[in-house]
Amino acid sequence: MAGEHCFFLLKEDKPREACGVFGIFAPGLDVARLTYYGLYALQHRGQESAGIAVGDGERITCRKGMGLVGDVFAEESLSSLSGHIAIGHVRYATTGESSLENAQPFAFYYKRGMIALAHNGNLTNYAELRRELSQSGSIFQTTSDSELIVSLIAGNDSGDLTAGIQETMRRLCGAYSLILTTGNRLYGIRDPYGIRPLCLGRLDDAFLLASESCALDTVGAEFIRDVRPGEIVMIDESGITSLQSHQQGRRALCVFEFVYFARPDSVIDGLNVQKARYALGRELAREYPLEGDLVIPAPDSGVSAALSYASARRLPFGEGLIKNRYVGRTFIRPTQQLREMGVKLKLNPVRERLAGKRVILLDDSIVRGTTSGKIIQMLRDVGAKELHMLVSSPAVTHCCYYGIDTSREGELIAAGHSVEEIRRHIGADTLHYLSLSGMQAALAPFPREEVCDACFSGDYPLEGKERL
Amino acid sequence: MAGEHCFFLLKEDKPREACGVFGIFAPGLDVARLTYYGLYALQHRGQESAGIAVGDGERITCRKGMGLVGDVFAEESLSSLSGHIAIGHVRYATTGESSLENAQPFAFYYKRGMIALAHNGNLTNYAELRRELSQSGSIFQTTSDSELIVSLIAGNDSGDLTAGIQETMRRLCGAYSLILTTGNRLYGIRDPYGIRPLCLGRLDDAFLLASESCALDTVGAEFIRDVRPGEIVMIDESGITSLQSHQQGRRALCVFEFVYFARPDSVIDGLNVQKARYALGRELAREYPLEGDLVIPAPDSGVSAALSYASARRLPFGEGLIKNRYVGRTFIRPTQQLREMGVKLKLNPVRERLAGKRVILLDDSIVRGTTSGKIIQMLRDVGAKELHMLVSSPAVTHCCYYGIDTSREGELIAAGHSVEEIRRHIGADTLHYLSLSGMQAALAPFPREEVCDACFSGDYPLEGKERL
Amino acid sequence: MAGEHCFFLLKEDKPREACGVFGIFAPGLDVARLTYYGLYALQHRGQESAGIAVGDGERITCRKGMGLVGDVFAEESLSSLSGHIAIGHVRYATTGESSLENAQPFAFYYKRGMIALAHNGNLTNYAELRRELSQSGSIFQTTSDSELIVSLIAGNDSGDLTAGIQETMRRLCGAYSLILTTGNRLYGIRDPYGIRPLCLGRLDDAFLLASESCALDTVGAEFIRDVRPGEIVMIDESGITSLQSHQQGRRALCVFEFVYFARPDSVIDGLNVQKARYALGRELAREYPLEGDLVIPAPDSGVSAALSYASARRLPFGEGLIKNRYVGRTFIRPTQQLREMGVKLKLNPVRERLAGKRVILLDDSIVRGTTSGKIIQMLRDVGAKELHMLVSSPAVTHCCYYGIDTSREGELIAAGHSVEEIRRHIGADTLHYLSLSGMQAALAPFPREEVCDACFSGDYPLEGKERL
Amino acid sequence: MAGEHCFFLLKEDKPREACGVFGIFAPGLDVARLTYYGLYALQHRGQESAGIAVGDGERITCRKGMGLVGDVFAEESLSSLSGHIAIGHVRYATTGESSLENAQPFAFYYKRGMIALAHNGNLTNYAELRRELSQSGSIFQTTSDSELIVSLIAGNDSGDLTAGIQETMRRLCGAYSLILTTGNRLYGIRDPYGIRPLCLGRLDDAFLLASESCALDTVGAEFIRDVRPGEIVMIDESGITSLQSHQQGRRALCVFEFVYFARPDSVIDGLNVQKARYALGRELAREYPLEGDLVIPAPDSGVSAALSYASARRLPFGEGLIKNRYVGRTFIRPTQQLREMGVKLKLNPVRERLAGKRVILLDDSIVRGTTSGKIIQMLRDVGAKELHMLVSSPAVTHCCYYGIDTSREGELIAAGHSVEEIRRHIGADTLHYLSLSGMQAALAPFPREEVCDACFSGDYPLEGKERL
Repeated sequence: MAGEHCFFLLKEDKPREACGVFGIFAPGLDVARLTYYGLYALQHRGQESAGIAVGDGERITCRKGMGLVGDVFAEESLSSLSGHIAIGHVRYATTGESSLENAQPFAFYYKRGMIALAHNGNLTNYAELRRELSQSGSIFQTTSDSELIVSLIAGNDSGDLTAGIQETMRRLCGAYSLILTTGNRLYGIRDPYGIRPLCLGRLDDAFLLASESCALDTVGAEFIRDVRPGEIVMIDESGITSLQSHQQGRRALCVFEFVYFARPDSVIDGLNVQKARYALGRELAREYPLEGDLVIPAPDSGVSAALSYASARRLPFGEGLIKNRYVGRTFIRPTQQLREMGVKLKLNPVRERLAGKRVILLDDSIVRGTTSGKIIQMLRDVGAKELHMLVSSPAVTHCCYYGIDTSREGELIAAGHSVEEIRRHIGADTLHYLSLSGMQAALAPFPREEVCDACFSGDYPLEGKERL
Repeated sequence: MAGEHCFFLLKEDKPREACGVFGIFAPGLDVARLTYYGLYALQHRGQESAGIAVGDGERITCRKGMGLVGDVFAEESLSSLSGHIAIGHVRYATTGESSLENAQPFAFYYKRGMIALAHNGNLTNYAELRRELSQSGSIFQTTSDSELIVSLIAGNDSGDLTAGIQETMRRLCGAYSLILTTGNRLYGIRDPYGIRPLCLGRLDDAFLLASESCALDTVGAEFIRDVRPGEIVMIDESGITSLQSHQQGRRALCVFEFVYFARPDSVIDGLNVQKARYALGRELAREYPLEGDLVIPAPDSGVSAALSYASARRLPFGEGLIKNRYVGRTFIRPTQQLREMGVKLKLNPVRERLAGKRVILLDDSIVRGTTSGKIIQMLRDVGAKELHMLVSSPAVTHCCYYGIDTSREGELIAAGHSVEEIRRHIGADTLHYLSLSGMQAALAPFPREEVCDACFSGDYPLEGKERL
Repeated sequence: MAGEHCFFLLKEDKPREACGVFGIFAPGLDVARLTYYGLYALQHRGQESAGIAVGDGERITCRKGMGLVGDVFAEESLSSLSGHIAIGHVRYATTGESSLENAQPFAFYYKRGMIALAHNGNLTNYAELRRELSQSGSIFQTTSDSELIVSLIAGNDSGDLTAGIQETMRRLCGAYSLILTTGNRLYGIRDPYGIRPLCLGRLDDAFLLASESCALDTVGAEFIRDVRPGEIVMIDESGITSLQSHQQGRRALCVFEFVYFARPDSVIDGLNVQKARYALGRELAREYPLEGDLVIPAPDSGVSAALSYASARRLPFGEGLIKNRYVGRTFIRPTQQLREMGVKLKLNPVRERLAGKRVILLDDSIVRGTTSGKIIQMLRDVGAKELHMLVSSPAVTHCCYYGIDTSREGELIAAGHSVEEIRRHIGADTLHYLSLSGMQAALAPFPREEVCDACFSGDYPLEGKERL
Repeated sequence: MAGEHCFFLLKEDKPREACGVFGIFAPGLDVARLTYYGLYALQHRGQESAGIAVGDGERITCRKGMGLVGDVFAEESLSSLSGHIAIGHVRYATTGESSLENAQPFAFYYKRGMIALAHNGNLTNYAELRRELSQSGSIFQTTSDSELIVSLIAGNDSGDLTAGIQETMRRLCGAYSLILTTGNRLYGIRDPYGIRPLCLGRLDDAFLLASESCALDTVGAEFIRDVRPGEIVMIDESGITSLQSHQQGRRALCVFEFVYFARPDSVIDGLNVQKARYALGRELAREYPLEGDLVIPAPDSGVSAALSYASARRLPFGEGLIKNRYVGRTFIRPTQQLREMGVKLKLNPVRERLAGKRVILLDDSIVRGTTSGKIIQMLRDVGAKELHMLVSSPAVTHCCYYGIDTSREGELIAAGHSVEEIRRHIGADTLHYLSLSGMQAALAPFPREEVCDACFSGDYPLEGKERL
């Protein structure tokens, strides 16, 4: 399968989450502003575009733009969005097409009025559905599977919208957490496998939906519960109604949410993310009880596991690498010549702490193996005596088809190389990955058959992996 | 003295450093680009404006703008700056005037050609000098003391520029680390007290000057030494020449560089900043060996001291508060109503970690006391059982007149209140500041008479504290 | 009918043309750049948004934005548009909705690939068609009739695209000049009445389509002929193919193109616009041979008719009002108070020329009567002794439903008031409109039954006038 | 003298005026907004940058930017400028340096507070004065002579500012119309030769100063009188005070103001500009009573003279060339290849009017001769039978040193070529310039010894012509 397309993208050698979604039904409150703050809390899930659509019972008005939430919205544009329902979206480009047309929410006119949608996930039968709809005369402004979902829902002849949604869910394969509004109702929908997270909250009389619970905390809302796999939550003036879709699938929550994506303060399907990362670090300490003078994390994502590893091993933990907090999306990257001269913007090692030490470097994952080697070289340059690399998840050997931005499988270093080869490639003295069973132990609240760990195991919960 | 003007500014309840400066003499290299990266490494010292001036032996060309380095410069503007000498500046507004006119470097035409200057610090005899120059017919575009320094140097009748600089230094009181160029020479100047840092580096045949050594690391340069108090370093094609100004003062390096300002990976006058912070944490553990279940830092500046405190006390360290990395300078702040509803963008506590715990919260400093209370309330809200606050520096009781952005002395909470009153104000169960002698012990490489700790002690190294 | 919606918009008290369209098939040439220049020449037909879509045989790429052509496109965005077919559009908001979503061309994916369309005109059975399509499941991003036309064409089941276009034309009522591309073919389509202009040109081996011939002149192309009412012109590598739609209608070219819209250097359906305006002025001289000292035009649109009136009457012509050429779309309008103080930005009378004179003021049309009164007052203020107003077209008494931007019929001053009432309202000594038969005489090359003069006569060529 | 630097710039083959200035003293009125409108009326005098400085008795606040007045100022920036005195400036770059630093007004701090200045004109002893000031220690941010004027005034030791201004005027050589404010007084100053215009107006209790009277009309003010050569007008709460400088010079008003620069509705030193242009056209008819079928102007500046020529000769006048009103400053110019293909954006001839005609083309001036040839070719291409070019001013043979933007003298086509050579160069059948005595006759209200016609005659009113 090496060489085929899959969808990782690897700045900092991490996979990228495709999106974050947020929704609120709150007559009397400034729903656009609350959505703005909610999206801020979900910004780590997507930084390419941001958008908010607000419904006032009659019309849906949508504003979106390229860039961070704070870049896209100013006081004026927020103030112009009034209504009692809002949905919001932050996005990464999963398919490399990065343009305003693909920014969400998507708002459309359809036979019953207007409809707007925000989507996190990825359909695996996209191409087939698209072909079918095109044949029957549909036109599309984008190649996004989210536009296609609206087409299916809007074109459905069932009695009402809710029936149309249920009907549509029968036809969708893949991962989707959807937030949808018609301008007077708010819907939250999670695919039958529950691959992407989605949770429900309350703020006085208002109800909220969000990709992660940290967004509820941020707007001062109370967490109620996670939306269940295959559930349709419908919110309007009479409160919350829950429907279950007819499809059945095994639960398959994405484990990478715990390994890397989600914010440490979020709780997903009952498990706190930081707690999961500490458990991953502890399992690593159990599997590989190394000796050393200092445990340092790869900033920032390795910190939690490194702290718990160091604590379990009773070794000193230290911030051996200082990250420049101001290196943003717009900076001018050094030329090759400057890089060779030693120009390095993002990370700088603290020589005083590292010189002469046996260093244990801990990262949460290795995808292409592009940055670990550079970090190790940097550490050796300031005099680290030994360098042992630990990874608090198993080797990434398979592509994701459910909404994580990856590259071709051929680019996954562990898909084609042994651990020893990777160790040599990155220049570490030793290299250890957490085992699959170690990860399962760390994520114990979930039986293995209720998560998706396909990128580590190749064990895909759904058939079909095609994408346009 | 309460009620008079001094210059703190207190977002996140921290003082603000006024500026970062950078300079490079490097025939054959892309000096503008290297300065750009150097300023990136110094961005924490000033985020309001950024500028680069490049000299090619004949002309000096200057580009500057409001905002971060990455916002101000694009590929095109960098490429248009060619030459063999560059100086750069990042700035905070010390006097509340935030406009492009005040952005540095300042470039002027004078009798011998052109001159450009970047300044970190604050003159204490500014008003007197300004009055004098105005009387003799000088005009000024700004109220900046940096423009005034150029006026003095340019108007000096001494034989040559170096003599003019020496002559000028006799007339300046206060703190100044200056980088200056005439288009074919680069000068680095540090006031006789050495209040603000300035160091010297080398990159192959090129020489560099920077506020902090982390900027040298970032561009791949080697640290040579700190510029000495009262020293004038002159760099041109024949290499480095050092001159000593005639003024004498006791050394008085600002201790707040170690407490909060400088980057942990920098080494200032021989002491690594992270190492100093660990020592402050250890002293705190010696003075206040508290019992508790968890030590957590106020993000991000309390991390180093909290780690060493926890390690010394053999207590668990944890990231109890998650900081939103995307809350930038442009975001729309919540209204009072939304804040009361619980909207909180910057920090979110990790309930799972804190509930039921006796928490030791460690911060590096308290200035006005505005945020500590909010953090403590947030921690209590998620169920922390006890809250003990530790501060890894003494109470800030006096204003700074040497280039740190503060507010009126009346706003310094410790200037008018006892520790017990502050404790009650912020709602902690206990509150302890590191003692002055504890801080001295931690910064042991420096005898107390060689630092300026006036903001803690009131013991100002210079007379005079006026500002426009 | 007063009070119902119709679509005038009346800055400067003129109706607004809805759009200009341009297309080019030119393998080997820089089609995007030529379209850019073509749109520049058509800018007077629409200034709210501009867009260009380029096809390279495989893909269609579209760039559009709010504002003038020169604001929307920079070197970089033009250079990124490569291919051999381009279509372009400049737009006015006919329905008051002014947003990027409504900017054209519209580009869509459909079953056979991609399709892009630029439209000038207005459908009268829009609401009915929209309802029908929505019922069968179509979704729309805009309320534009142009998006609806694409939906009809793309969803058509006929054998090929050309058949689909013919089929679609059967269902459309109203005015439309369309330019359409599939990425390897270019289509030009004019409604069966030929209400909006569209012409065909050649540039070496390339073929072009444009709303007005001035756009062909501007890009150095040669005018071939007008597209015929009901004609479909299809251009591809094998040259031009012409098809005639099956609908029949009487020719009904909009006379306002000659009165006001079109550029004086354009030739529409055989008649030069400037020549038409001179003829209107001459007819006016025949109908109202006034005495006076000076004939002045309302700048700029009254100039041609005023020149020919003055010449026919052997009276001096003068520029009595100077127009500020820099008053653009973005200027800050004076407050009511400032207007009362006499602040007047756009026009200033030349006192030296006007004082003591019997002035004949000539304008091409009066719509709401909002500006004529102001101009007359301005002229009296500088001492004009008598003021006789002449209008080189009949009174506008009816709304347009075919793509001209008007307001409600109730706002058309001549719909509810006699000429004498209007004269008093604007404060002229006398007021005369050209008669309907005078206008017919001036536009003699066209028999009256081959033009649409419904806004003057109420004699609509098509049934139906509804709009969303 | 050919080859030396002088300062023309020749888009459209016209010289460029250097600046427009405006000032207002009006307690109780929105002075910034009135200045904004005043600058709009003067926009034809400078389009590169615009600025407004407002004084409130204590402080002067200044906002400026690159571009047109309407681009530089938005509602927000205007609203932030409050006070009772304002001065404004629009600017062309006379020396090719086009940057924000050179935008005016210049505002400075000096010994008595603040001072701001707007300048139209050019000093001829700039370099000498600059050298002198630099030697005595002054520093400058720009190479502008305006900054130098402020330095001289501010540095003057005379008893008060007015005395300092008088003292400074003794040292200035060249052309200057200055508007200056200290925040509570407004000064208007005109050089002893009165080379650049400046006039005084009143609006209720307020007083105004402006480069041209059209700016007074625009803001609803009443023209009082022109400022006299060598006069200092001082306006404050006690009204207007007039002082005369001690220098004597002959009056030397720039004739190009009447030929081309000024707006037709302005009155300068007693002569209406449109009236002057009509007189120039009449003189031309007297000197060259040509036969022809049609008189057409080079748009827009030849219109007035062409109308009066046609009227005097009883020949038809026509708009033979249509100018694209939307070709602005930002458009992308056609490449050489596209120009050769015939792409022409600015002007399009009306074939129907020109074909087969003997055309008399009238322009106000020819500087480099770059565009006349292109226009003539364009006219021949559409079939004009004969082409006779008339110029309503004499041949430009000498550079201007008093504030008009020209190029090197070597580039003035008439400086090195005979009329016959120019005729052949531009391809006209005949070519005639108005004679110097014809121009004098047309501008009869001014005796020849009271104008500056040096660019036509070489008869410079002042010695010295150097510039940096």
